[in-house]
Amino acid sequence: MAIILTDLWTQILIPVCALIGIAFSLFQWVLVSRVKLTPEKQTNNSAKDSKNGGYNDYLIEEEEGLNDHNVVLKCAEIQNAISEGATSFLFTEYQYVGIFMVIFAILIFVFLGSVEGFSTKLQPCTFNKDNMCKSALANALFSTISFVLGAVTSVVSGFLGMKIATYANARTTLEARKGVGKAFITAFRAGAVMGFLLAANGLLVLYITINLFKLYYGDDWEGLFEAITGYGLGGSSMALFGRVGGGIYTKAADVGADLVGKIERNIPEDDPRNPAVIADNVGDNVGDIAGMGSDLFGSYAESSCAALVVASISSFGINHEYTAMCYPLLISSIGILVCLLTTLFATDFFEIKAVKQIEPALKNQLIISTVLMTIAIAFVSWIALPSSFTIFNFGEQKVVKNWELFFCVAIGLWAGLVIGFVTEYYTSNAYSPVQDVADSCRTGAATNVIFGLALGYKSVIIPIFAIAVSIFVSFSLAAMYGIAVAALGMLSTIATGLAIDAYGPISDNAGGIAEMAGMSHRIRERTDALDAAGNTTAAIGKGFAIGSAALVSLALFGAFVSRAAISTVDVLTPKVFIGLLVGAMLPYWFSAMTMKSVGSAALKMVEEVRRQFNTIPGLMEGTAKPDYATCVKISTDASIKEMIPPGALVMLTPLIVGTFFGVETLSGVLAGSLVSGVQIAISASNTGGAWDNAKKYIEAGASEHARTLGPKGSDPHKAAVIGDTIGDPLKDTSGPSLNILIKLMAVESLVFAPFFATHGGILFKLF
Amino acid sequence: MAIILTDLWTQILIPVCALIGIAFSLFQWVLVSRVKLTPEKQTNNSAKDSKNGGYNDYLIEEEEGLNDHNVVLKCAEIQNAISEGATSFLFTEYQYVGIFMVIFAILIFVFLGSVEGFSTKLQPCTFNKDNMCKSALANALFSTISFVLGAVTSVVSGFLGMKIATYANARTTLEARKGVGKAFITAFRAGAVMGFLLAANGLLVLYITINLFKLYYGDDWEGLFEAITGYGLGGSSMALFGRVGGGIYTKAADVGADLVGKIERNIPEDDPRNPAVIADNVGDNVGDIAGMGSDLFGSYAESSCAALVVASISSFGINHEYTAMCYPLLISSIGILVCLLTTLFATDFFEIKAVKQIEPALKNQLIISTVLMTIAIAFVSWIALPSSFTIFNFGEQKVVKNWELFFCVAIGLWAGLVIGFVTEYYTSNAYSPVQDVADSCRTGAATNVIFGLALGYKSVIIPIFAIAVSIFVSFSLAAMYGIAVAALGMLSTIATGLAIDAYGPISDNAGGIAEMAGMSHRIRERTDALDAAGNTTAAIGKGFAIGSAALVSLALFGAFVSRAAISTVDVLTPKVFIGLLVGAMLPYWFSAMTMKSVGSAALKMVEEVRRQFNTIPGLMEGTAKPDYATCVKISTDASIKEMIPPGALVMLTPLIVGTFFGVETLSGVLAGSLVSGVQIAISASNTGGAWDNAKKYIEAGASEHARTLGPKGSDPHKAAVIGDTIGDPLKDTSGPSLNILIKLMAVESLVFAPFFATHGGILFKLF
Repeated sequence: MAIILTDLWTQILIPVCALIGIAFSLFQWVLVSRVKLTPEKQTNNSAKDSKNGGYNDYLIEEEEGLNDHNVVLKCAEIQNAISEGATSFLFTEYQYVGIFMVIFAILIFVFLGSVEGFSTKLQPCTFNKDNMCKSALANALFSTISFVLGAVTSVVSGFLGMKIATYANARTTLEARKGVGKAFITAFRAGAVMGFLLAANGLLVLYITINLFKLYYGDDWEGLFEAITGYGLGGSSMALFGRVGGGIYTKAADVGADLVGKIERNIPEDDPRNPAVIADNVGDNVGDIAGMGSDLFGSYAESSCAALVVASISSFGINHEYTAMCYPLLISSIGILVCLLTTLFATDFFEIKAVKQIEPALKNQLIISTVLMTIAIAFVSWIALPSSFTIFNFGEQKVVKNWELFFCVAIGLWAGLVIGFVTEYYTSNAYSPVQDVADSCRTGAATNVIFGLALGYKSVIIPIFAIAVSIFVSFSLAAMYGIAVAALGMLSTIATGLAIDAYGPISDNAGGIAEMAGMSHRIRERTDALDAAGNTTAAIGKGFAIGSAALVSLALFGAFVSRAAISTVDVLTPKVFIGLLVGAMLPYWFSAMTMKSVGSAALKMVEEVRRQFNTIPGLMEGTAKPDYATCVKISTDASIKEMIPPGALVMLTPLIVGTFFGVETLSGVLAGSLVSGVQIAISASNTGGAWDNAKKYIEAGASEHARTLGPKGSDPHKAAVIGDTIGDPLKDTSGPSLNILIKLMAVESLVFAPFFATHGGILFKLF
Repeated sequence: MAIILTDLWTQILIPVCALIGIAFSLFQWVLVSRVKLTPEKQTNNSAKDSKNGGYNDYLIEEEEGLNDHNVVLKCAEIQNAISEGATSFLFTEYQYVGIFMVIFAILIFVFLGSVEGFSTKLQPCTFNKDNMCKSALANALFSTISFVLGAVTSVVSGFLGMKIATYANARTTLEARKGVGKAFITAFRAGAVMGFLLAANGLLVLYITINLFKLYYGDDWEGLFEAITGYGLGGSSMALFGRVGGGIYTKAADVGADLVGKIERNIPEDDPRNPAVIADNVGDNVGDIAGMGSDLFGSYAESSCAALVVASISSFGINHEYTAMCYPLLISSIGILVCLLTTLFATDFFEIKAVKQIEPALKNQLIISTVLMTIAIAFVSWIALPSSFTIFNFGEQKVVKNWELFFCVAIGLWAGLVIGFVTEYYTSNAYSPVQDVADSCRTGAATNVIFGLALGYKSVIIPIFAIAVSIFVSFSLAAMYGIAVAALGMLSTIATGLAIDAYGPISDNAGGIAEMAGMSHRIRERTDALDAAGNTTAAIGKGFAIGSAALVSLALFGAFVSRAAISTVDVLTPKVFIGLLVGAMLPYWFSAMTMKSVGSAALKMVEEVRRQFNTIPGLMEGTAKPDYATCVKISTDASIKEMIPPGALVMLTPLIVGTFFGVETLSGVLAGSLVSGVQIAISASNTGGAWDNAKKYIEAGASEHARTLGPKGSDPHKAAVIGDTIGDPLKDTSGPSLNILIKLMAVESLVFAPFFATHGGILFKLF
């Protein structure tokens, strides 16, 4: 049966969906911007001149007499400080990363160009030796270009996410005065701006790049998509620095602020007297928002690239079936529409009226998007694929039916949902695991840590089975292409995933701003409720990121193996086995570096905060202002300095292993780091999430059990705070960086595969 | 060139070396027993009748007037309590494990017997299809017998170790009155009793079993050594229950005692007023001593079996070269002699005079034994091997020279030394890593935990490279036989390794007894110094156990793959990859179970200890005695109940995977759990060791830096105690159990390989 969707319609559909996504994102932004941060009809920001005009129209509840417009101005001021801090950090970070980008771009060009000795002659294609493909030099050039494009898109994605998050945080605080539902919608819409912008932007740039490259490559799909893999590498390498740098920044500040403020000085979180408080809030935006945006964008770019590379050497590529070839992009396109519809369920079809509706609303987002997406995938698979086709499978072609491919995408999608729910179960304080952890605080911090670690380890079981089942099914049905589209399936609802994920740090910041602006504790309770749900969604988002990273890495690994022309990766050869063993060690090495970095930076922060409390008279009494800037500088310096060694470890390992030990050992390293890294990543992020929510459970005191453990300042609460602090680097620095580690090493190996296959394994060749 | 050593000499040499080992062990025991636990010339134990006769002859120093013979009687009484507690627990444990053994023995017989439908007919051999081998039923019967033998030997090893340890602990305390050197020698000799007894016993039983089986098997080496693998399985499955049960027992008591005693009540460790103190000391003996004895015995038995299985299908077996066949046993035999000589360096050639000589003395033991053993291995390789022979390598025969095999054994041996030194570096408080961890206690428990976890992760790097290099070299030189003898090389100095390992818990107990007997704090300082060195040696011992387990598992894995007639384990097949992923998850699942078990049992213990402090009047004042028995019962019940789920996980996984998913997936599971488990095991045991010694570093206050953190009871010290408590289950329960997990699953797969190869993979066959 022929493909129903014509090539022309495909060429229209993809950019239109992307543009709809961007338009929707802008529309959400307009809605967020309606919350005014300046007292109305005031152009002059000075509080003295305020005539309070129209102000009271806009407030539903009066809050203990604190609701003069000074609060609004104060919120605006704090927001500005956070936004400026975040912008300035990101610019500093991008300067350093920019240098790295240039060096690495040159490396890519030189390594790949050297494969055929910088010759511009056409060469036989890797898989179809009868055809002539573009020269290795052209491949080098276009890979470098797409690398730079991927990097820039990733940077822009992270930066825009940060901008909208810092734009919305104070607005969420102000809306919290009107009720928890209003605040929720503001935070969620802001999240949606980021989610849709990233998803649509990533799709559009990729689509345009493909079409531009096609002008040169023409019918050489294989060469074209090999060059496109650079896009994924660019995206992920930026994500690595974003996650690691941002992660160190945010957790140094957070741990430092908590250790002195909460534990020693007994002042609340986000108290404006704490000198590290601005750095802490800046950190949420550069780490959780910008870092995560880059990360998921990277996953998305890579899974698309992996699918496209495999497709180019399958019947789609060989027969030049444009629409079928674009199947991965069509899935993402339709995903944007599905997520758009899903978002309306949270923002328009239903209204949040009470605190306990928040978590279900966010969970429903996941369920609705998954159900709708399943139907959409079936539809796309029906119209965009021939009923039967062949897929490249390590040297042979495997016959696949279109409904089989539907199953591959769908199983990825549903595995994501399973991972999401398991993560929620283990990190939400509505269920027994977190409550048990909270209960263990009765006997002190030690049992809290033991129970928390055990919880994290246990939470790995079901996600791993979910990933294993999806790998088995999609691998059996459609080989590596199946894995790649399963990853895409998991990421097809990325816009919704990012929206609920970004919602968390925005709520967290909103709470911080409420505290700093001296707003009533009732406001703070509302933002805390938003934030508690946000911790869970953050963990869910991390679960998605890790699950998809596992699938993406495997797909990239498969593409690498194909491109390096290896037919088996046999564990029973010493070259592969030592690779496996060392690869499984890399996540530990990497985590050791990042955790130590957070620890050292936090120590410096603690010393500075203590120094300020001890030397600035009137600071504890609130009569003097702390020196926020020094703390911001400590976080900035530490994260810039400390992100280099772990970054170098990840970026250099494939190069060193591939060059000196060759492609078999590198295959082992990739497989080892994948199977080991996934476990640490999941357990670290869930352990951290559980500790955070165990602490919140005690603080909120919403149940009889919780009240026996509290209140704030009780011994169990102190034990819970210690757990929370330990969890910070686990859940926000080392854990989420690990999924970048595994996919980045895989995509880098894929990009450099021609070089390794030609010149690699020097050491073994010598002996 | 023919083999120099004749078969007759081989048959004499092996049992003679074993008997020398046993004799030496008994001699050391006699020396330990010379320290009298009864006031001399007293047959009546009553203190009232004491005439103090001869008592003062035997004491060099007078300690603050406390040295009346009441102290001796008190020590004897405490020792009795500990010994009885340990004996009673082990008997209870063995009852439950005995039931398991019977069930599992039946399982082995039924599964293996069913391979050929319980037929008694001869069958073609697995590798040499032209020869006829004994029937599957005979194989089933003899495998079952050797399983039971291995289990019994393991139980006896653990039990004897515990007996000598509880025999020596009070004697060490009493000797500490005379000086640190005397105490050291007593503890070390007791360790040597255990080390030599286990090494010699294991060798002797294995040797006798082989010779008895040979009466039936005759020239069928292949069948004989396949049946012998049951010995390894028996040894390791007992070790699993010993380690897990003992580990939960000891840490529930330890954590429980510390949480209430040290943190809440501010009384010293091992204070007799603490109701959990006896349970804590019993735990050291059943967990660290009996568990570890079984563990290392299991490793030793398995590596011998793995080497013998591969040898039987290599030219040694095919050409019936008895001496060459016995090469693994000869290595172990000569190892006993080397260790004997090494021990004399610690006990006779040099004398410990000061605290700071203890660690170097123990380190020298490692160095001396390694150097001497290298020469011994060269000698054995020269006289016991033909200059050239062939080794089976997954379907083909590989030519190997005798000096190549020497390199395989030697590299294993030296890798062990490297692992030992790295472990020492990361866990001894003489070096900066532990000092940094101690320093991080300044800012509280949270940074202590973050730094400690980072240290553990980091400590994985070099050991993994050491293991990887030994795997690569020995694999390249002599395939799976090379790996097996490398493991044997690492374990060839097992007698010395066990001696310095057992020395730790004995010193720990000695300190406990000093405290409980109310002896002077100077005595306690001496035993603390012994104990601090003991923590490091315990970590070194664990490093050896893990390193050798990794090599052993790989060798067993190779033997399994050969026996199941798989020629490649290709990561690029879905069956293998999901196995790899799920296998890498198993250590996390297992750790979650064991840590949660320790946590829950500790919570119960805490409640009981608190209850006693609150309800027994005069307990804190020391006028009333606590109810030790209830605490012992809590630990016993918890460990018996809680050892079953993790035990079942490990024992059932290979059976379920092999039966339902087949040998390819099982191969993946074995490889995955191996590469992932090694990392967690090393990091868990080093993190725990580092925390323990960071605490001891602060307590001892031996340097300027340490004194700024102390004294006992200071905030940094409290933070260090929390870290120490968290480290307890990591280093003594989950960490060391993991190496049993990986080797046990491998040896079990090997034993059941014929069944899986014939009837396995039901699920895939159905679809």
